[in-house]
Amino acid sequence: MGPGRLHALIDGVFAIALTLLVLDLPKPLFSTHLVHVLLHQWPSYIAYLVSFVTIGILWIEHHGMMSAVRGIDRRFLERTLAFLLFISIIPWPTALAANYADRGFSEARAVAVLYAATMLMMGITFAWGWRYLTTHPELVAESARPAFPAGTRRALLGGLVYLAAIAAAFVSPLVSFAIDAAVAVYFAASRSEVPGLIVQSTQVKGD
Amino acid sequence: MGPGRLHALIDGVFAIALTLLVLDLPKPLFSTHLVHVLLHQWPSYIAYLVSFVTIGILWIEHHGMMSAVRGIDRRFLERTLAFLLFISIIPWPTALAANYADRGFSEARAVAVLYAATMLMMGITFAWGWRYLTTHPELVAESARPAFPAGTRRALLGGLVYLAAIAAAFVSPLVSFAIDAAVAVYFAASRSEVPGLIVQSTQVKGD
Amino acid sequence: MGPGRLHALIDGVFAIALTLLVLDLPKPLFSTHLVHVLLHQWPSYIAYLVSFVTIGILWIEHHGMMSAVRGIDRRFLERTLAFLLFISIIPWPTALAANYADRGFSEARAVAVLYAATMLMMGITFAWGWRYLTTHPELVAESARPAFPAGTRRALLGGLVYLAAIAAAFVSPLVSFAIDAAVAVYFAASRSEVPGLIVQSTQVKGD
Amino acid sequence: MGPGRLHALIDGVFAIALTLLVLDLPKPLFSTHLVHVLLHQWPSYIAYLVSFVTIGILWIEHHGMMSAVRGIDRRFLERTLAFLLFISIIPWPTALAANYADRGFSEARAVAVLYAATMLMMGITFAWGWRYLTTHPELVAESARPAFPAGTRRALLGGLVYLAAIAAAFVSPLVSFAIDAAVAVYFAASRSEVPGLIVQSTQVKGD
Repeated sequence: MGPGRLHALIDGVFAIALTLLVLDLPKPLFSTHLVHVLLHQWPSYIAYLVSFVTIGILWIEHHGMMSAVRGIDRRFLERTLAFLLFISIIPWPTALAANYADRGFSEARAVAVLYAATMLMMGITFAWGWRYLTTHPELVAESARPAFPAGTRRALLGGLVYLAAIAAAFVSPLVSFAIDAAVAVYFAASRSEVPGLIVQSTQVKGD
Repeated sequence: MGPGRLHALIDGVFAIALTLLVLDLPKPLFSTHLVHVLLHQWPSYIAYLVSFVTIGILWIEHHGMMSAVRGIDRRFLERTLAFLLFISIIPWPTALAANYADRGFSEARAVAVLYAATMLMMGITFAWGWRYLTTHPELVAESARPAFPAGTRRALLGGLVYLAAIAAAFVSPLVSFAIDAAVAVYFAASRSEVPGLIVQSTQVKGD
Repeated sequence: MGPGRLHALIDGVFAIALTLLVLDLPKPLFSTHLVHVLLHQWPSYIAYLVSFVTIGILWIEHHGMMSAVRGIDRRFLERTLAFLLFISIIPWPTALAANYADRGFSEARAVAVLYAATMLMMGITFAWGWRYLTTHPELVAESARPAFPAGTRRALLGGLVYLAAIAAAFVSPLVSFAIDAAVAVYFAASRSEVPGLIVQSTQVKGD
Repeated sequence: MGPGRLHALIDGVFAIALTLLVLDLPKPLFSTHLVHVLLHQWPSYIAYLVSFVTIGILWIEHHGMMSAVRGIDRRFLERTLAFLLFISIIPWPTALAANYADRGFSEARAVAVLYAATMLMMGITFAWGWRYLTTHPELVAESARPAFPAGTRRALLGGLVYLAAIAAAFVSPLVSFAIDAAVAVYFAASRSEVPGLIVQSTQVKGD
């Protein structure tokens, strides 16, 4: 079996997770101070943006990995499903973070831990998929195989940063969320792509 | 007509069912005891996990079946839609199970029966698709045809286990849910795949 | 441009419309008479089933049409979007029908008219697409062209039946809904497919 | 990497944004004056229609652009994600516009500005993608390259019209929404497509 249909499931879950985030933006139904109410909900907009960018960057990164995959087996499918579990759950801690980031300390701390823990698990399951491909090179295009150990490290390190976000939450939830946002910005801006796996401009013979 | 577009509809329904589950995770809006409230909702997390794993494993299993399909006809489309009906309905008994698993006995029993009955119907319609392909071998790749009777049995047996979960609900809803969870774990861990249909590592000529 | 990506959008909208229906199934949050409450919601289950089957059958029918399409132009895209507008709106009259079918006469009549009118518009825009292809045979596979006038008639007649459902609503909303259900059952059971367009078993050289 | 999987993500986000709009149509649960309540919600229907048509037309336009793309790189992916951010957010200002368009002036003004600003950002990020392809012709089919400067202008002008809608909101929210609707109608009716990029009828050898 080629990886075509797995791509379809992955892209579907990513597209839906990206789009479901919108359901938790505040829609006050009968407000007489709408502008004030909307402005007051600023944590919702930041949470939306950070989660959207994080999911989007992860799609790009995962895309880079999958573009080197030439075959799949059942264990790889299972690792991919574990990764998709944490992608599809992201709207939940996002909504909680939006609602509680500016409340009391213990609530803000709880949602900061929950948000970073979700991201941590997502990073770990992502690295789990990379690692499986590293140890099963027969599933990977020959030219891309040398790049997979570095890819595994990058995914794992990207995920483990969220351990810092979890620790920070116990001192300052705001710092914890700032770390989450910084990871998204860093990966969005990062050009140090894994050679051989990167999404490269590929010239195809036109028309 | 080749089965390409049917794959797209199937993958779409699976991806959405997997992702819609997140909408029923608890999002208390103005709680002052957030951690306590969230911890109290543990049945939601277990229900989410069991349903996600069940849908995910079913996607893998259905995927294995479809990868041997070489043509489709209208009757097979109808059987597939019947199967998708029960896949797409899963978030509903999941939400009810999450809300009522730790309430009074009669409520817990009702949702345990509803959950297991949905899974039972899903298994039966899945086996119905397998059986149609077994009796219409012209739709199946020649090398995979001998494996289809075993595939039908596996799907049917996987579904009929939920009869035990329905029966158990009348004694103990908790045991009923434990059976649901055990089926998901068993199929996730199971390596005894139907030979010739299994999602195998397929080496494709690289780059 | 080939029709490949249009298929992806169509299949996405159909898959989501099929799956969003589940969001309107009743999920009473803190009921002490859960079984009674759930049984009382029987119109929801019938509405869910009729809408699911109707959307599913329409996917099969639309699929049959699209499988003969060999090229698309902007006007055809616009007709397809008009059709998708009414497919994607179906969960709305479905939810209203579920809530009001067993209320007072004027409410039941209103939702019966709304439901049938949505289906009427869906049938008309579907026939509109058929007709465009009939009058632009260059977009259609040569072998399928003779079948398109009959396909247009079938789609239009299938849609116009809902005029009877609208009329019936003023006498009896229940009869109106019964007509909606009968259309779904008729098309699901119907074997009199348009020759040359039907979803046929296609033997592809295996493995 | 070819642009195939990017198409899948784009089509998924568009399909979901188109379909999620339905969740904000009014579903009064226990109304005794249902018809009156539904008729009173006319802004919801207009908002639904304008947003659906706008997203649909944008899909056609974006589709036209992408059909000329022969390769993608990471920067183009990021620009596409920025565009998808504003596509996927559209259901939010749509719901607010539906709820507040006929309320007090300051509320209607706020939602009119929010709606037009979302559309403005969507147009700017769309033009940003066009511009990137104009300055990176190696990603574009040779025959289509001359058309890209005009495509960039068209996308940017289409977006900048929403500046007028924002300005108009401070005088009359109704005029602002009328401009939003006019843009959708204009692009739906417009035949002055960018030569070489347009979605043309393409005759493919049949069957």
